[in-house]
Amino acid sequence: MAATVPTPQQQIRRRNLSRVLHALSDGGPASRAAIAARIGLTRAAVSTLAEELLRAGLLVELGPGRPDGVGRPGTALALDEAGACGLGAEIGVDGLAVRAVDLRGRTRAHTTLPGAHRASAPDAVLTRLARLLEETTGRLAAQGLRPAGVAVAVPGMVARGSTVVVRAPNLGWPVTDLAEHLGRLRAPLAVDNEANYGALAELRLGGRPPGDDFVHVSAQTGIGAAVVLDGALLRGARGFAGELGHVPVHPEGPPCACGGRGCLEQYAGEEALLRAAGSAPGSGTGRLAARAAAGDTAARAALAAAGAALGIALAGAVNLLDPRTVVLGGALAGLGPWLLPPLERELAARTAAPGGPPEVVVSAAGPGGPLLGAAHSVVRAVLDDPLAPAHLRAAAPAGRVRP
Amino acid sequence: MAATVPTPQQQIRRRNLSRVLHALSDGGPASRAAIAARIGLTRAAVSTLAEELLRAGLLVELGPGRPDGVGRPGTALALDEAGACGLGAEIGVDGLAVRAVDLRGRTRAHTTLPGAHRASAPDAVLTRLARLLEETTGRLAAQGLRPAGVAVAVPGMVARGSTVVVRAPNLGWPVTDLAEHLGRLRAPLAVDNEANYGALAELRLGGRPPGDDFVHVSAQTGIGAAVVLDGALLRGARGFAGELGHVPVHPEGPPCACGGRGCLEQYAGEEALLRAAGSAPGSGTGRLAARAAAGDTAARAALAAAGAALGIALAGAVNLLDPRTVVLGGALAGLGPWLLPPLERELAARTAAPGGPPEVVVSAAGPGGPLLGAAHSVVRAVLDDPLAPAHLRAAAPAGRVRP
Repeated sequence: MAATVPTPQQQIRRRNLSRVLHALSDGGPASRAAIAARIGLTRAAVSTLAEELLRAGLLVELGPGRPDGVGRPGTALALDEAGACGLGAEIGVDGLAVRAVDLRGRTRAHTTLPGAHRASAPDAVLTRLARLLEETTGRLAAQGLRPAGVAVAVPGMVARGSTVVVRAPNLGWPVTDLAEHLGRLRAPLAVDNEANYGALAELRLGGRPPGDDFVHVSAQTGIGAAVVLDGALLRGARGFAGELGHVPVHPEGPPCACGGRGCLEQYAGEEALLRAAGSAPGSGTGRLAARAAAGDTAARAALAAAGAALGIALAGAVNLLDPRTVVLGGALAGLGPWLLPPLERELAARTAAPGGPPEVVVSAAGPGGPLLGAAHSVVRAVLDDPLAPAHLRAAAPAGRVRP
Repeated sequence: MAATVPTPQQQIRRRNLSRVLHALSDGGPASRAAIAARIGLTRAAVSTLAEELLRAGLLVELGPGRPDGVGRPGTALALDEAGACGLGAEIGVDGLAVRAVDLRGRTRAHTTLPGAHRASAPDAVLTRLARLLEETTGRLAAQGLRPAGVAVAVPGMVARGSTVVVRAPNLGWPVTDLAEHLGRLRAPLAVDNEANYGALAELRLGGRPPGDDFVHVSAQTGIGAAVVLDGALLRGARGFAGELGHVPVHPEGPPCACGGRGCLEQYAGEEALLRAAGSAPGSGTGRLAARAAAGDTAARAALAAAGAALGIALAGAVNLLDPRTVVLGGALAGLGPWLLPPLERELAARTAAPGGPPEVVVSAAGPGGPLLGAAHSVVRAVLDDPLAPAHLRAAAPAGRVRP
């Protein structure tokens, strides 16, 4: 039993290895002395840690750099742009997408594949996704990269800590374990709701301060949200937190597929929004935005009603959670000009806390957030625990295929 | 700079001292060997830690005990029932209350003082509270006890990490720093919303598993809630999380003091509930329960409407947070028989997650929860960090007044 539990010394070493990697990820290439100053360790301790990370293939030496303020110029260290990378995938109602980012956060592969996935069969969709992931892995290998993990964003609910999609109304899938279809990839598989990955992208790319609290609203076809508290995702007891789309807005309103009535999705979901604007089903929010921009009255009225409904549902969330910021992401990001005024009006009128409502901003990552967040989640897992076997395997210099 | 940051070894020692105390708090008196088995340390390590805690006056030897399964009988250790204790206070609309518990969790003092605090002056109320706390401290000293801290539960919003009440509509107070009025106590002062302390009582006494997720609804005059995630209170960016009473239920409903419309408090708050039932303002929920029990139609209709409104607001909270359990506390606990059926009906119909709504239970701590939770929060702070100077001062054997 004692053999499986790391000693306090091992725990401290693992944490310090991770801190060196995060310092380089957050602040860019730096000498050992500069890293030591960033994380509050001695230069000698950082040298020992860096040696181990260089051997593992997670760091590279960039050669003599500029002096760090004082003293001799140090040799700059950087995260290795070869070796381990993060591979993200997104299953959408309108298609598939994959994207790979290296440890420095740069995109190294990005492919989208249109498809009609509403009321689809999981088998067919996942077979195409497995092929797409394999092709991408081949193209990454030619660049000297190997996925340290694969993270798949789905428009549905995923049981906590599992790879099982338990409800995906817009895909029309039964309970589906993605591991059964994507097991050939030979890299650890993670599956999560697209709203959660969208929030991770916002956390990484949106310039949010560390330990931030925010609610990230993410609309693709449905409306989801991710709640980030002290910089960490709130998952809920079973993994189903963040269902903002099913917060009651008008309790006697139209029936919803969830069994309730008057849920937010019945006012601000894509289908309801297009119907209220007199648009054809599936015609997309981009065309709706164009109509609103051209002054179309029906489009503007539909967006105003959706914005007010969002404001009412978010007022409930804000009174319960007291977040610092509300971030509008996904398809809603492009509708900001019409949604924001009524949304902010409702939120201001209904926030009970002194000091008024939190700031509402539009996501920096935009509609591509969930895919990017999925890819980055793998990189983050490597930085958090560089000694995990799968991470070492992907990073191992001996195993690399150099172009 | 380095002098103020504990070394990893010091951190580990402090954590282990805390683990020994928590093991005795959770499992009762035990020998050094039994404690070692409970927390996974060696018997020698526990002996060293116990020596330090005995010297500090936080533990006592109970004399030879029964054998722990195998080996020689060990001398049982127990938390010291003299020395440090927790002192809690509650400022209510109808009076003041104080309660002290020792490290073993037993009540050692409990006094209530009726008062009309609606639209009161903070000065007068806090002067009475200071006197009550001083008298109680004197009576505790006669029992050999000294408060390691004072925790005050208030029916209002408290800025995070401060002693400042920033909004207390039912007391009618302006922004008030309790430290300015209660500074003479010479024990660290903590102030928090009564709903948060109510949830701590539920966590300690309600048999909730460690790391539980639940929403604790607490009604005194207003309606508050505390959200407990992974066994810890969610506070929000500014400390104002948990305002369930201001979640919109019927967005076009009656105006609320918060500036919104149709908030939960307008349907299930004490004032609204008594008005809907045709009861006199301030006549109390106890009398309403008696009317409902006697079959009074107006009382039952008012409670049914309040229960449905609670169910709608909680459905929003459940879809956002996915808690394992919803706990009804405070004044609502006594109205369970009439509130629960409509509440559970709405919650079941509106929970989006597969597997249905969380269980709804009535608080084990009842209306006394906030006061008890406040007292226990001080004990918990001692167990969490026994070496804090204020905790050592209260526990110090030399300073004790034995009866």
